[in-house]
Amino acid sequence: MAETFEKLNRLLERAAALQTAMVLFEWDNETLAPKGAALHTAKMIGSLSEQYMEIVTSAELADLIKTCRKEGGLTGLQEAVVRETEEEISRWKDIPVAEYRAFRELVSRATGIWAKAREENDFASFAPVLREIISCQKRFAACRAKEGQSLYDVMLGDYEKGFDTEILDDFFRELRENIVPLLREASERSQKIRTDFLSADYPVSAQERAARFLAEYVGFSFDRGVLSVSAHPFTTNLHNHDVRITTHYGKRIDSSVFSVIHEAGHALYELGIRDDLTQTPVGQGASMGMHECQSRFYENIIGRSRAFWEPIYGKIGEIFGEPLASTPLDDFMAAVNRAVPGLIRTEADELSYGLHILVRYEIEKMLIGGELDVDHLPEVWNGKYREYLGICPESDSQGVLQDIHWSQGSFGYFPSYALGSAFGAQIYYHMKEEIPVEDLLREGKLGDIREYLRDRIHQYGKLKDSRAILRDVTGEDFSPRYYIRYLKEKYGA
Amino acid sequence: MAETFEKLNRLLERAAALQTAMVLFEWDNETLAPKGAALHTAKMIGSLSEQYMEIVTSAELADLIKTCRKEGGLTGLQEAVVRETEEEISRWKDIPVAEYRAFRELVSRATGIWAKAREENDFASFAPVLREIISCQKRFAACRAKEGQSLYDVMLGDYEKGFDTEILDDFFRELRENIVPLLREASERSQKIRTDFLSADYPVSAQERAARFLAEYVGFSFDRGVLSVSAHPFTTNLHNHDVRITTHYGKRIDSSVFSVIHEAGHALYELGIRDDLTQTPVGQGASMGMHECQSRFYENIIGRSRAFWEPIYGKIGEIFGEPLASTPLDDFMAAVNRAVPGLIRTEADELSYGLHILVRYEIEKMLIGGELDVDHLPEVWNGKYREYLGICPESDSQGVLQDIHWSQGSFGYFPSYALGSAFGAQIYYHMKEEIPVEDLLREGKLGDIREYLRDRIHQYGKLKDSRAILRDVTGEDFSPRYYIRYLKEKYGA
Repeated sequence: MAETFEKLNRLLERAAALQTAMVLFEWDNETLAPKGAALHTAKMIGSLSEQYMEIVTSAELADLIKTCRKEGGLTGLQEAVVRETEEEISRWKDIPVAEYRAFRELVSRATGIWAKAREENDFASFAPVLREIISCQKRFAACRAKEGQSLYDVMLGDYEKGFDTEILDDFFRELRENIVPLLREASERSQKIRTDFLSADYPVSAQERAARFLAEYVGFSFDRGVLSVSAHPFTTNLHNHDVRITTHYGKRIDSSVFSVIHEAGHALYELGIRDDLTQTPVGQGASMGMHECQSRFYENIIGRSRAFWEPIYGKIGEIFGEPLASTPLDDFMAAVNRAVPGLIRTEADELSYGLHILVRYEIEKMLIGGELDVDHLPEVWNGKYREYLGICPESDSQGVLQDIHWSQGSFGYFPSYALGSAFGAQIYYHMKEEIPVEDLLREGKLGDIREYLRDRIHQYGKLKDSRAILRDVTGEDFSPRYYIRYLKEKYGA
Repeated sequence: MAETFEKLNRLLERAAALQTAMVLFEWDNETLAPKGAALHTAKMIGSLSEQYMEIVTSAELADLIKTCRKEGGLTGLQEAVVRETEEEISRWKDIPVAEYRAFRELVSRATGIWAKAREENDFASFAPVLREIISCQKRFAACRAKEGQSLYDVMLGDYEKGFDTEILDDFFRELRENIVPLLREASERSQKIRTDFLSADYPVSAQERAARFLAEYVGFSFDRGVLSVSAHPFTTNLHNHDVRITTHYGKRIDSSVFSVIHEAGHALYELGIRDDLTQTPVGQGASMGMHECQSRFYENIIGRSRAFWEPIYGKIGEIFGEPLASTPLDDFMAAVNRAVPGLIRTEADELSYGLHILVRYEIEKMLIGGELDVDHLPEVWNGKYREYLGICPESDSQGVLQDIHWSQGSFGYFPSYALGSAFGAQIYYHMKEEIPVEDLLREGKLGDIREYLRDRIHQYGKLKDSRAILRDVTGEDFSPRYYIRYLKEKYGA
């Protein structure tokens, strides 16, 4: 056994090295690379990706896995490595290589077409390529679908193991029924809240200092991490000793402030993964949803709470100077907790955010299920925004063209955002029974909260999936009711 | 033929992708990566390097090359690709893989030991590992040495094809005989030159603006390049559309000013390589020496000339402010052209620089030739500094421990620095006969000079080696006399 597993490890290390290189290229591309480099660099990334695929679909890897299974006697970690590898193999083994290469090229063209279409508010120019992407993704999903499994469920499973449309239909119904009326009330109250002090020509250097301070405050380590700037904030990691976050500095300081706390939440997850897991197929966060759970827990559940700001608000005022410095904490708290329906998902408040995802979930289900043609996308999009958020985009740029995901071929990804919030609420109510969260925040003891999460979630990487984590941490399976309760307590009259 | 070459290209592209990834990791490591990441990242780089070596030493590659040779009918470019590939194969094919892996690990440990030894001025702690490195490198060179070829000549050939100790002995003898007395005179005159205005608490932001301005002024393109900060300035490139330089900002502004011009000189070379060569084995500068020729030509030959500064000195004064702004250009020119022997190579002026290299060349020859044991290195080093530069290090940190090269296993590299200066002078005198260099500088027409170099040198990549370039550009083989003439004209009484 030991010998077979050692051989497997060596082969997986080669795959991991290729993957890590691709992560670094992506990071570099988003944060630093000169704009003229893209075409030439893409050729290199394409080759690395092919070399990776060759390992994953090689007879050598399949044989090693088979031998591991036959020989048995796997430790828990080895068992998980074999399982994740099997899943990765089954994700790729039936995909025709030439077709997949054509798809990668299609997608890399498509993001450019999408960006131009969004800029020029020209959905028609994006529609044909989107239709092609959907058709490719459906073909690939069909290669992998189990007996009776819907194509959209195949896609959902890539981002959130153990979740399918049956569970998500229930979840989103709950959201719709509860949040739509709640948002209407909260929105009226929010109109009166002043926010002028959030956008008062604060210098970028102050925003940078605040970003660095907040990242460190929640526990991000600059010895094992990097903070850079990119058009859209994101987190990535080479391994558990090199985790990188980005932010952007704009007119409104709450944008970078909360994006940094959000990304630091992602980063703490990856930094907290055990040393014996990192650089193996088990050495990443359990799922997209569990990742969003960590980031949104930090950004919203604790990051927008009064207790979080009490010990540091003075320091933050010092960093930004006037007018923030003389703005009462209560005004600041009110401003960063306004709930007003808007058109843009990434700018949405905590309450309406779930409705933005609801729209996308319902549409994806129809698109993949063949019940909606791309040509009718804008009108369906606009109709749902009117119905759920009470507002309607005046242009497709502000509507159906706002997100990059579909142009990248990502379908089934959006629901994870909302699931993350729901996981977070479920964990939060349980956590409060075990440790005095508010007191800890008030005393600036972020380390205790981080250790709680590390101990129960972070360290395990992919040893457990998100539902198993929820069961182990909270004693029950996934349930949307905590999320609804949380939103009602926070935004109810 | 076409089909075989196409197969060869595909395999070489895989190797190039792995190599480009390693370049990016190295760049990232020097400019950005968190310090805690090194150990884990090294594992990934080790795997990429192994995957690269496997391609280079594969039977598949050897067979393709053999078939190309047999089928014949190669174009000029194809011929060069095959030739460079053959050389790369022969560089690696006889090196025992396990031994080489052990060597890479040794070297990665050694740079840490060297850094500590330098910090603590403790040569004895570095000596054993240095002895081991030398012994490994000699073994590897022995695997590759041709009949009658000395081991040091094998090493020299890696950096400068067509150069060996026979040529270099002559070259360095000329340097010694001419520069040693010249430096003595120039140094006396230099004592009186004031330099206070070069280190007057100029803010880093001004240094940054000047660095960007100067890089662009000589022709560096930020659409296809990046300027970052690292402990030691360097240039690297992913391909001809992504060329990156670094600098550092210290107390003395001439340090970053001239390092940026120097690195931009390297960068212009890589940016100027033809599109059909980049990302092939021919798509890099011809040699280390020809690269240093470009960088030193920009830094010293034109970069320290009055004509270069005339059109931009006002702008530079504006960027830095007082006291530079009111310092006469003649004072600035005198200050940046002082020639005073010092202990540190990287801080050396143009005139004494060659003597620093001379010391290293003579010592490397002895170390590899077995005529000098590592234990006696410090006293031999100090003796040579006394003899050639008239000064003696008070500590090994300022002496034999100052350079990282030997700890990285680089022997035979140093001579390229001096050769670069000599190539530059030879090209300069010829260039002056063809285009009015000084007038162009005075008119700010840097583009004409860049085009001259691009047309005659840059575009060819490795299609020609440095001696062939010199012959084609100047009509004669390498000759040290232009360099001596240049130094005498500039620094003679």
